[in-house]
Amino acid sequence: MERLKQAIRERGNVLSSEVLKVDTFLNHQVDVELMGAVGEEFARLFKDDGVTKVLTIESSGIAPSFMAATNLNTPLIFARKKKSLTMNENVYVSQVYSFTKRETNDITVSKDFITAEDTVLIIDDFLANGQAALGLIDIVNQAGAKVAGLGIVIEKSFQDGRKRLEEEGYRIESLARIHELEAGRVTFIDELVTNNN
Amino acid sequence: MERLKQAIRERGNVLSSEVLKVDTFLNHQVDVELMGAVGEEFARLFKDDGVTKVLTIESSGIAPSFMAATNLNTPLIFARKKKSLTMNENVYVSQVYSFTKRETNDITVSKDFITAEDTVLIIDDFLANGQAALGLIDIVNQAGAKVAGLGIVIEKSFQDGRKRLEEEGYRIESLARIHELEAGRVTFIDELVTNNN
Repeated sequence: MERLKQAIRERGNVLSSEVLKVDTFLNHQVDVELMGAVGEEFARLFKDDGVTKVLTIESSGIAPSFMAATNLNTPLIFARKKKSLTMNENVYVSQVYSFTKRETNDITVSKDFITAEDTVLIIDDFLANGQAALGLIDIVNQAGAKVAGLGIVIEKSFQDGRKRLEEEGYRIESLARIHELEAGRVTFIDELVTNNN
Repeated sequence: MERLKQAIRERGNVLSSEVLKVDTFLNHQVDVELMGAVGEEFARLFKDDGVTKVLTIESSGIAPSFMAATNLNTPLIFARKKKSLTMNENVYVSQVYSFTKRETNDITVSKDFITAEDTVLIIDDFLANGQAALGLIDIVNQAGAKVAGLGIVIEKSFQDGRKRLEEEGYRIESLARIHELEAGRVTFIDELVTNNN
């Protein structure tokens, strides 16, 4: 998605060879026009897949999922990173390790909202090691529901998340795939292809 | 907002005289169509107030804010409840006590995203004791920016949040104002007025 790649280039901040900060438009300040377009693109990519629920994880997944669920005409569910006092024990639980935050969180989804009849599109802001995606897939599997696929805003293709998910047979649609972060610069996978031509 | 009140009546769950659970359409599963309409209503109410930023707090504030920021043509900023490792120290901080979760959180907003030139619309899912609202106002004040007002999805009018904010001169637009939660039933303020006529 060219507009997204442009935002990453111009408004992203490469902190190291592993860390890209995008809090100018995605996970702190949100460019709602761009995230709306991102959500519409996910909806377009999965429009023929019988999606009945969109599932993401708080907080950064919510904005890019909003227009996806709107255009697919489904509810949006965001997994909680820890249980709140008003959530009872009627939940699916999975564990997710965050390399960025160096902590393990229980993620929970109420059993009321995903059932065996559902076909679930999973959306997340980043795909790196695949921890969050695997946790969300685990929850869909616990519900006996079907995973339509994964919609990822930014994929760090130099980490092994995509490989793990593909090995398990899941479809992944990433709107920006990063080959390398180096010397403050982002190289996308499709730029490599262009260079080879 | 009649559609919102209908959703609260039909899909809300009164857990006690103080606690209304709305995780069927607002803060776990999101009815994106309804939350889109909520956001559009906030945008309509504040369209003439020169809003340059919409500010909310993760996670439940994000969905009802998305279309508000979209229609006001502004960025959306969500305050973080704790600092992440990729956020540096360039932040405004305020403290918010959550009666529901019985814990105090630091909420933080990067200094990059609110400046003295901004006019900020603050949106939140609930107004009860006003703790979160006061924390967000504190952050806008630290930035030297102007508060356009507060857009609240559900106000628990039997708690003192509105009174505190009005005493400080802030404009509050609540789309559903609850007079009482009792015996599993919700009574809205404007139903009382109707009964008196």
